Amino acid sequence: MAQPQASDGAQPGRPPLRIGMVGYAFMGAAHSQGWRTAGRVFDLPLSPDLAVICGRDADAVRTAADRHGWAATETDWRALVERDDVDLVDICTPGDSHAEIALAALAAGKHVLCEKPLANTVAEAEAMVRAAEDARERGQLAMVGFNYRRVPATALARRMVAEGRIGTLRHVRVAYLQDWLVNPQFPLTWRLRREQAGSGSLGDLGAHIVDLAQYLAGEQLAGVSALTETFVRERPLPTAPGPAAVSAGTGQVTVDDAALFTGRFASGALASFEATRYATGRKNALRIELNGERGSLAFDLERLNELSYHDGTEPGTHAGFRRILVTEPDHPYLEGWWPPGHGLGYEHTFVHQARDLVHAVAEGRSPDPSFADGLQVQRVLAAVEESAEKNSVYTPIAA
Amino acid sequence: MAQPQASDGAQPGRPPLRIGMVGYAFMGAAHSQGWRTAGRVFDLPLSPDLAVICGRDADAVRTAADRHGWAATETDWRALVERDDVDLVDICTPGDSHAEIALAALAAGKHVLCEKPLANTVAEAEAMVRAAEDARERGQLAMVGFNYRRVPATALARRMVAEGRIGTLRHVRVAYLQDWLVNPQFPLTWRLRREQAGSGSLGDLGAHIVDLAQYLAGEQLAGVSALTETFVRERPLPTAPGPAAVSAGTGQVTVDDAALFTGRFASGALASFEATRYATGRKNALRIELNGERGSLAFDLERLNELSYHDGTEPGTHAGFRRILVTEPDHPYLEGWWPPGHGLGYEHTFVHQARDLVHAVAEGRSPDPSFADGLQVQRVLAAVEESAEKNSVYTPIAA
Amino acid sequence: MAQPQASDGAQPGRPPLRIGMVGYAFMGAAHSQGWRTAGRVFDLPLSPDLAVICGRDADAVRTAADRHGWAATETDWRALVERDDVDLVDICTPGDSHAEIALAALAAGKHVLCEKPLANTVAEAEAMVRAAEDARERGQLAMVGFNYRRVPATALARRMVAEGRIGTLRHVRVAYLQDWLVNPQFPLTWRLRREQAGSGSLGDLGAHIVDLAQYLAGEQLAGVSALTETFVRERPLPTAPGPAAVSAGTGQVTVDDAALFTGRFASGALASFEATRYATGRKNALRIELNGERGSLAFDLERLNELSYHDGTEPGTHAGFRRILVTEPDHPYLEGWWPPGHGLGYEHTFVHQARDLVHAVAEGRSPDPSFADGLQVQRVLAAVEESAEKNSVYTPIAA
Amino acid sequence: MAQPQASDGAQPGRPPLRIGMVGYAFMGAAHSQGWRTAGRVFDLPLSPDLAVICGRDADAVRTAADRHGWAATETDWRALVERDDVDLVDICTPGDSHAEIALAALAAGKHVLCEKPLANTVAEAEAMVRAAEDARERGQLAMVGFNYRRVPATALARRMVAEGRIGTLRHVRVAYLQDWLVNPQFPLTWRLRREQAGSGSLGDLGAHIVDLAQYLAGEQLAGVSALTETFVRERPLPTAPGPAAVSAGTGQVTVDDAALFTGRFASGALASFEATRYATGRKNALRIELNGERGSLAFDLERLNELSYHDGTEPGTHAGFRRILVTEPDHPYLEGWWPPGHGLGYEHTFVHQARDLVHAVAEGRSPDPSFADGLQVQRVLAAVEESAEKNSVYTPIAA
Repeated sequence: MAQPQASDGAQPGRPPLRIGMVGYAFMGAAHSQGWRTAGRVFDLPLSPDLAVICGRDADAVRTAADRHGWAATETDWRALVERDDVDLVDICTPGDSHAEIALAALAAGKHVLCEKPLANTVAEAEAMVRAAEDARERGQLAMVGFNYRRVPATALARRMVAEGRIGTLRHVRVAYLQDWLVNPQFPLTWRLRREQAGSGSLGDLGAHIVDLAQYLAGEQLAGVSALTETFVRERPLPTAPGPAAVSAGTGQVTVDDAALFTGRFASGALASFEATRYATGRKNALRIELNGERGSLAFDLERLNELSYHDGTEPGTHAGFRRILVTEPDHPYLEGWWPPGHGLGYEHTFVHQARDLVHAVAEGRSPDPSFADGLQVQRVLAAVEESAEKNSVYTPIAA
Repeated sequence: MAQPQASDGAQPGRPPLRIGMVGYAFMGAAHSQGWRTAGRVFDLPLSPDLAVICGRDADAVRTAADRHGWAATETDWRALVERDDVDLVDICTPGDSHAEIALAALAAGKHVLCEKPLANTVAEAEAMVRAAEDARERGQLAMVGFNYRRVPATALARRMVAEGRIGTLRHVRVAYLQDWLVNPQFPLTWRLRREQAGSGSLGDLGAHIVDLAQYLAGEQLAGVSALTETFVRERPLPTAPGPAAVSAGTGQVTVDDAALFTGRFASGALASFEATRYATGRKNALRIELNGERGSLAFDLERLNELSYHDGTEPGTHAGFRRILVTEPDHPYLEGWWPPGHGLGYEHTFVHQARDLVHAVAEGRSPDPSFADGLQVQRVLAAVEESAEKNSVYTPIAA
Repeated sequence: MAQPQASDGAQPGRPPLRIGMVGYAFMGAAHSQGWRTAGRVFDLPLSPDLAVICGRDADAVRTAADRHGWAATETDWRALVERDDVDLVDICTPGDSHAEIALAALAAGKHVLCEKPLANTVAEAEAMVRAAEDARERGQLAMVGFNYRRVPATALARRMVAEGRIGTLRHVRVAYLQDWLVNPQFPLTWRLRREQAGSGSLGDLGAHIVDLAQYLAGEQLAGVSALTETFVRERPLPTAPGPAAVSAGTGQVTVDDAALFTGRFASGALASFEATRYATGRKNALRIELNGERGSLAFDLERLNELSYHDGTEPGTHAGFRRILVTEPDHPYLEGWWPPGHGLGYEHTFVHQARDLVHAVAEGRSPDPSFADGLQVQRVLAAVEESAEKNSVYTPIAA
Repeated sequence: MAQPQASDGAQPGRPPLRIGMVGYAFMGAAHSQGWRTAGRVFDLPLSPDLAVICGRDADAVRTAADRHGWAATETDWRALVERDDVDLVDICTPGDSHAEIALAALAAGKHVLCEKPLANTVAEAEAMVRAAEDARERGQLAMVGFNYRRVPATALARRMVAEGRIGTLRHVRVAYLQDWLVNPQFPLTWRLRREQAGSGSLGDLGAHIVDLAQYLAGEQLAGVSALTETFVRERPLPTAPGPAAVSAGTGQVTVDDAALFTGRFASGALASFEATRYATGRKNALRIELNGERGSLAFDLERLNELSYHDGTEPGTHAGFRRILVTEPDHPYLEGWWPPGHGLGYEHTFVHQARDLVHAVAEGRSPDPSFADGLQVQRVLAAVEESAEKNSVYTPIAA
């Protein structure tokens, strides 16, 4: 019997799409699951090939490759983006390196998938959009990884909004609540330093909810008014690992702990946003509700297999918010999965992302969300920061 | 005038507290239930006596008196406040008449209970506070009717915050969502005209949530940044009742349909507020959540017998938001009611309000919330309107 | 001005319906609220008059009369049922005296409202039905107090079943879960002695759920198979009240702690029942779900303002259990209450019961549930006990 | 035969565990995901190798192998169990072939994982247990696939029961509700014929809930009393696929549509079971609640990342059912997954099953649940069928 030559997820008889991934922490693990599984569940035109994984520490990246099923390793992302056996570069690093890697990968002729936020600054994001547009003319694709568009329930919500089921939009309220910074003794990791992370909860959580709100609404924000706060301004430095770990003093938190903003959509609908890491007891509560003249939709990421829907055109006697279990065969992404009622999990958003991107590559279509979408989210975040600095004054989003 | 010997709610052998109520619509009916029932459920030092009810239409007020169990009627509130057989004047009229009636009643030596909002303007409310302070020296009491403090679950929440169970406060998020204006054909009632209603959702719903948020937090807002909107600016005029009802054209909506604001508490905690009548499918969804360093609390008026509590000091392994069914004998106001699990309803907040006010009168204590509390809420609402007019700029609350 | 002569709840200008109530504990208080409030909320043809209340201890009954608003007292129920100024006898005593009082009241020409269970034995209940049928020919009415039919949500459920909204019935599952006996040190009250209580959770909780299940289903049970259990067979005797309370030893529990049974409806639908006082954390969780070929309905008494409904005729894509907030003006009993979203409580079932019975008396209609309905429930409970004694064998319900 | 060098899921540097799977429908797809993913998420001592997959149709099994990532195929399970390059046989066929395949695989020296139910009859299951015991002495392992033990929330529930957190058990109530047979036009598939399926909802759903109830309780059922029903006794025969599909008449349903039973645990706790495919709107609602003297636990498979827990030892003032989001690092199986609040799905139960079985093989430990556990569940199901045939009489479980 002939041996399989391809890596995890390979489908015999289909052309491969050879992936080179930079970064292998949380997002790297999640993306690996996505690439590995997509062709096992969906009927894909190309077979994703976990070709090369890249990280600075040779031993660590080798361990990660073995764990996650990648065939080869690199320790320099510049080498990875130049490899002939890589078709698509998947960027899973912190935000401060996104622009440089993406620009190099596009220049090297690769397709690019870049984790959110697209970049740490609007200027970087603008350069990335320009490069992506140029590359598009050469047949290359670029996508930003707002994976929460690909929960079946949010995708169903988008479909229902587009079908007109909630009518003219009046309100969007959205919060992304976590609680891992509640303890003031939690250490000062890189995520709490502006130079690496760009911002705090705003870029980490706020980017997700700005994208999701605009995606579901089907329109963009026109302006925002914002407050941000850093509740705990000094935290212990992380101790070095090992038995001799000693207290290393404290350092300044230089990013926001929480960001609240209100805004107006282009259509006049109102929106309310909150991103925080101090909502004690809320672990990953991305909650969004849309109220329209004909109906309402609500979603909570902590119950990701459910979509709540109120049909406002029904007689009030029997109307009410219904809990749609988004596990039916005609729900988005469900054709490949299990029978009704057998729920999916967080990681499947990455399987769906891989599926959609593989189709786009095979068909030569521009995938959503584009780098331009990622740039527009950055502009919203920049307006939030500007408003917060200017006493919350209403700040239009740059076009 | 001779006393009623057996008016509704009368308790033999206890001195009466003779109530004169002005207004008999929704709030009048609710207050009547409160006065009638308080002495039937709680052991009160005084027996509330539904003495006189006042309304401009003699027939209508007579019908209301019979329906709600009031002994006598008046058609002029000036006559009511001067009656010797009235100890306490209960003001259930629209906001534009609160100040005038309250000032007259206090001048006439009566105790006063005034529905919220305390007044339509800060200036009126200031005058009312001054009059109440003067009257207090003469032994008279004055209270404003923020009844949602008296849901057992909110009262328990206040107690738990005061006990330190959620620790240093970080976030308060509160929304009051209704949907009765979603249909653009809903007529232009007085509630949609600034001259009578003062404001729209802001004064009606916003006043409740500002008071409740500050009450539960145990501290006051320092400033706000606000957006308001009127989605439907022209509505049909109400048709005259009767078989010959004809379309009467349309008129301008002159109040806000929705108000969103963020704010900072004196302690630095952040708050988010939303008041709207356009949240399709939400009928009376006053929802509040408080996140503190040691725990969180959440409440939804549509499930008013429940309080959600997360104890952040528990090991994460077994921690979670718990649903406290607030029907235990040691919960606030529950000593007089039913066994555990036998829930209360909306109207019982007025029974509890009556109970607390009767005790205050009997004991000569100043009741909460005071007119000064009502004024402070008006100042917050005024700052909201000012911020909304000034491009959402952060606006401190006047002290 | 003329003084009111009537008691609490009296409506001027309407003929009175003079109530004589026997018993004044939990049920007495609840019924008092019902009689007092019904005419204040609904437009009744007769004015309920809280005329006479009866209890064995003269001082205690006087206190209860004052608390609950009754005009006169008696210490012997035989005197009460013979009074000329009583039109209707309301029996709120434990089950072992129901038959004797009801028979005497019917013989004395009174209408009768009897708390559930109708009686402690089938034989007593049969005698009561015969007496009620004879009295009916003389124009007297008799009703049994299954108040849970009169929650707006259950009444709506009944209406929806009758409209065919769930189609052919397949399943009914119902549980009534409380937890007040979990602690083995809870004392041996009369409710735990067969001679007074008749049975334990079966008669107390089981009677409610058998009636409600049959009422909602619109059909009767054909037979049952049952298990019962007494988990804690010996409990401390109640200590005498007072400072010198001493341990009084222990006694035998002679009723069931829990009863589980399955059954078949006449139509072939299957049913599952559970009644227990040992469901730790469940305070008053009467939960019922009906599954039919076209839809499903679910209700939980701990959230009594909500009805859960699944419309099985909708496309699966958008279908789901919806939460109907049963507070709309066209929902059962809601015409007299508050705006949408302003919920009711447990006691309002007794207000609705009073309303319905007043209408029945005024119109000379036989009210539901009748004594015959109460007898049929007793027959189901008897079959449950018989099955439990006979090794759970399926036991038909006597016709 | 040479080994695959990079089959899906393979971990370099670890000895392989070579799997041969029989069957490739729903369960085959789910098991494939389990084997492929386990080593990607958990640190396993052996590397699962998707070596051979078997099905009768050569083309179809080849397609399945490519889709699910299996290296080789067979069309005769007898050939598969004899292959030298297979260490463990995973049986995913319908129940009527379990015994024959398992016996052959054990005789061939393989470890065996057998899907539930273990067999269609007690006699078959007994033979399998004997064979497994003999094989155990030769170092072979055998496990039955009750995957719902491996939801993190149910595993946490088991741990909490074992820790004594709910104390002496009083009640277990469990239902497994689906609705795919509600439509009487749903065709007569093999699952509705006794000769292939053994039984209907009883073996399919009832086996799961009997195992889960006993597993969580930590004890076995002593006896049961049961009702079963076939609501729709005649259904259309499945049409042959293809454009010329014609109606093929109707056939008899020869299995149960629903099974209800009550029972007693060895300790005296009571249990209630319901399995049905006619619960309109319930898609995969496996719900279980345990009430003990010190606390309660509840779970619903439609919200599988949550466990509901009531701590009965807390003061009632602050007690309530809490929703534990079972996504913390110290929750069962969570060490390899995502940060808190990032939920898992249905298929992960199979990943966990694979993990546990790989560890057992590597360590030579007998895995749970054993074939003996599977036999005991069959005995419960047999007692259910016997009781249903004997007029629901209480029927002890054979030891």
